[in-house]
Order: sequence, then C-alpha cells, then structure tokens
Amino acid sequence: MNKVITIGREFGSGGRELGRRLAEKLGFAYYDNEIITEIAKRTSLSEEYVRQVAEKRPVSPYPIHIATSFFHAPDPAFKQSLAVFSEQHKLIRELSEKSDCVIVGRCADYILRDENPFRIFVYADKESKLKRCMSRAGAENKLSEKEMKRKMAEIDRGRADYYAFFSDKKWGDRETYDLLINTSGKCIKQVADATYDYVKAVFAK
Amino acid sequence: MNKVITIGREFGSGGRELGRRLAEKLGFAYYDNEIITEIAKRTSLSEEYVRQVAEKRPVSPYPIHIATSFFHAPDPAFKQSLAVFSEQHKLIRELSEKSDCVIVGRCADYILRDENPFRIFVYADKESKLKRCMSRAGAENKLSEKEMKRKMAEIDRGRADYYAFFSDKKWGDRETYDLLINTSGKCIKQVADATYDYVKAVFAK
Repeated sequence: MNKVITIGREFGSGGRELGRRLAEKLGFAYYDNEIITEIAKRTSLSEEYVRQVAEKRPVSPYPIHIATSFFHAPDPAFKQSLAVFSEQHKLIRELSEKSDCVIVGRCADYILRDENPFRIFVYADKESKLKRCMSRAGAENKLSEKEMKRKMAEIDRGRADYYAFFSDKKWGDRETYDLLINTSGKCIKQVADATYDYVKAVFAK
Repeated sequence: MNKVITIGREFGSGGRELGRRLAEKLGFAYYDNEIITEIAKRTSLSEEYVRQVAEKRPVSPYPIHIATSFFHAPDPAFKQSLAVFSEQHKLIRELSEKSDCVIVGRCADYILRDENPFRIFVYADKESKLKRCMSRAGAENKLSEKEMKRKMAEIDRGRADYYAFFSDKKWGDRETYDLLINTSGKCIKQVADATYDYVKAVFAK
C-alpha cells in the first residue's frame, strides 16, 4: 500500500508550504490545487466555481448523512455540491492508489480513513497567521489587517463547516489526527525538516 | 538558556514512557516522580499526600486568581494545596535553570511559559489507553476493564481540573502546545524515536 500523508491546516498557518516541502523531501507526489483543476475538467464546471464549492459547506441545515436521505428533490446548487464532493472523493482515492503522496485539505484524511493515512493538522496563533497572510499578499494586497482577519476567520469557518458536513468528525480536533503542529513564530522550512524526520521514523517500521 | 521539554499526557497514552525515552536519547535530565519526592521533603508532608494534592484541583469553586483574592481565611486543606503548588512552582523553575530537561506533567508548560519550553501533549484513543493500562497493571491487577475505564477518566478529569485551576488555559487544547502526538495503536519506542528526530531539528536553529 502507498504511503499517504494528509494535511489539514488553518488558513495562514503555513500548512500548504509545509506539505509542499515535505513532499519534495520525501519524493512523494503533492496534491492541492491540482485536485481542483482535475475536478473542473471532469465535471465541466469552471475551476473558480469548483474552488468555491469545494471550500464551502453545501447549503443544507443537516450533515450529508441526513441531508441526502431527507431531501428527495434537493435544489440544483446542493446537488452540484454533492457532485463535486463525489468527484473529489473518487479522485482522491485514485491519487492515493497511484503513488506515495501528500494531499492538502479536501477532507482527504476522512475520505481515506480506511487506508490509514498519516494525518497532520497545522495551526498557529492569530498573530502569526495574520503576519504570514499580510506578507504573502505582498505589495498588491488591498486588504487592511482588519479585513484580512475577517477573511481568515471566514475561510476557516468554511473549512470547519465543510468538514463537519461531509464527515462525522470535528475539524482540528486532536482525535482526528496523528500529529498536530503549531507553527506560531516558527520558520516553516525548519518545521518541515522536523516533520520530515518525524515521518521518516514513523514510516520506518 | 537551557532546553526544556514539557510533556502533558492523557493517562494511559504512554506519555511518561515517551518522555523518559526522549530524555535518555537527548541526554537531558528527566523529572516526574522526583518532583513529588522533593516537594514532600521540602514541605514535610508525606509523598502520598503530596501526590494526591498535586493531581487534584484544590477544593474551591473558583480558579486560583479569583480564589486567592476572595478568600481571606481559606480552609487548611485549600491552604496546603496552594503551598504544594507554590513549592512545585519554585522547584520546577530551579530544575529548568539547572540543566536541559524533560518535565512530565505538573503544569510545567504553564509554570515555565516565559522560558519558552517546547510543549508536547501526548494522547490516544480510549481502546489504546485501556489496553496499555491493563497490560501495565499486569497479573496483580485487581481492576476490571470497567473499573479501569472509570479510573482513567477520573485521573484525566483531575488533571484537566488542576490545569484549569492553576492556569488560564485548557488542558489538552492545541493552542497550549507546540506538538500534539497521537499514540493510538503505536509503539511508544518508535514514537519516541520520531519525536527525538523532530525535537533535534527544532532545537538545531
């Protein structure tokens, strides 16, 4: 069986960079935006639309298990959300069967739960995340610190809702992961090196 | 400044063994029960009594910040709890100034918060913890699985209450730690090796 690492992350925590560096060092495939592009191709929806749908919980007051049994005639937007998730589900399984890989976000830890992936969650305190987001946005940034904070909170709320909708677990809860990494005030390259060393030792069995 | 690693842990998660192995590999001092013994000496209380007091939240409906200002004439048991905590506080600071070390439990992460220790929390699912506790108890074990489960829950509740009383943080919350390690179904020696590799890379800066 292939070795699969899934990475859940708070927006601005550096989780994506950590995942990319980890994949590079391990020589594993790395999937993040590639997943959106491929789903867009398969569903004939625009990448922008798929990205929106794949980051937000479908409009339904119930989790998927209930929502799909209750609503015999769901509205088209809801149906499309489920179609994107279903395609994502298939694609993530295909990718995990193809080679060793690192998959960022997309409920991958839950989708692949029977394959026993190594599940990482990356987080940081608000100040560190804000600093990273502002510096990443660079000179073209049009958001004030206050607006950026609002955006950060909104994205993370979307991820938490999405995760709660499609799984029966709580996003970021320690029970759902093998390793939780706090990047507050830390250099992501160094944290990635440390994580690489940890993962190598875990995979050595 | 010395390198200090603090380890919070759920009962039965293997956190203590992980801490001991980590200290051995790093060549750091290791403190756990030694702290109880030393406090007993300094306070002239019995080790058994200190252990009880140091594992349970003092009898007060308020956290320490409020309790100590409200009660001008607290009862003797409450006063003794505070005396033990105060001695523990002093001792842990002394130990951290003496040499590089690993300290298990005892609110050490909170007590040393200004020294920037590397804060680990070790946890596992209920089945793994029960299995570890039952096998550790060995042939002399007089507890049924049900009784052991109750004991495990009681000890962890005591730790959480103690932590909440003496700090303004929540025990086991990811914000309070640098690294959270899930030992469910894993070999502690291997997890300790991986943690050693992680910590070496973090300390390498």
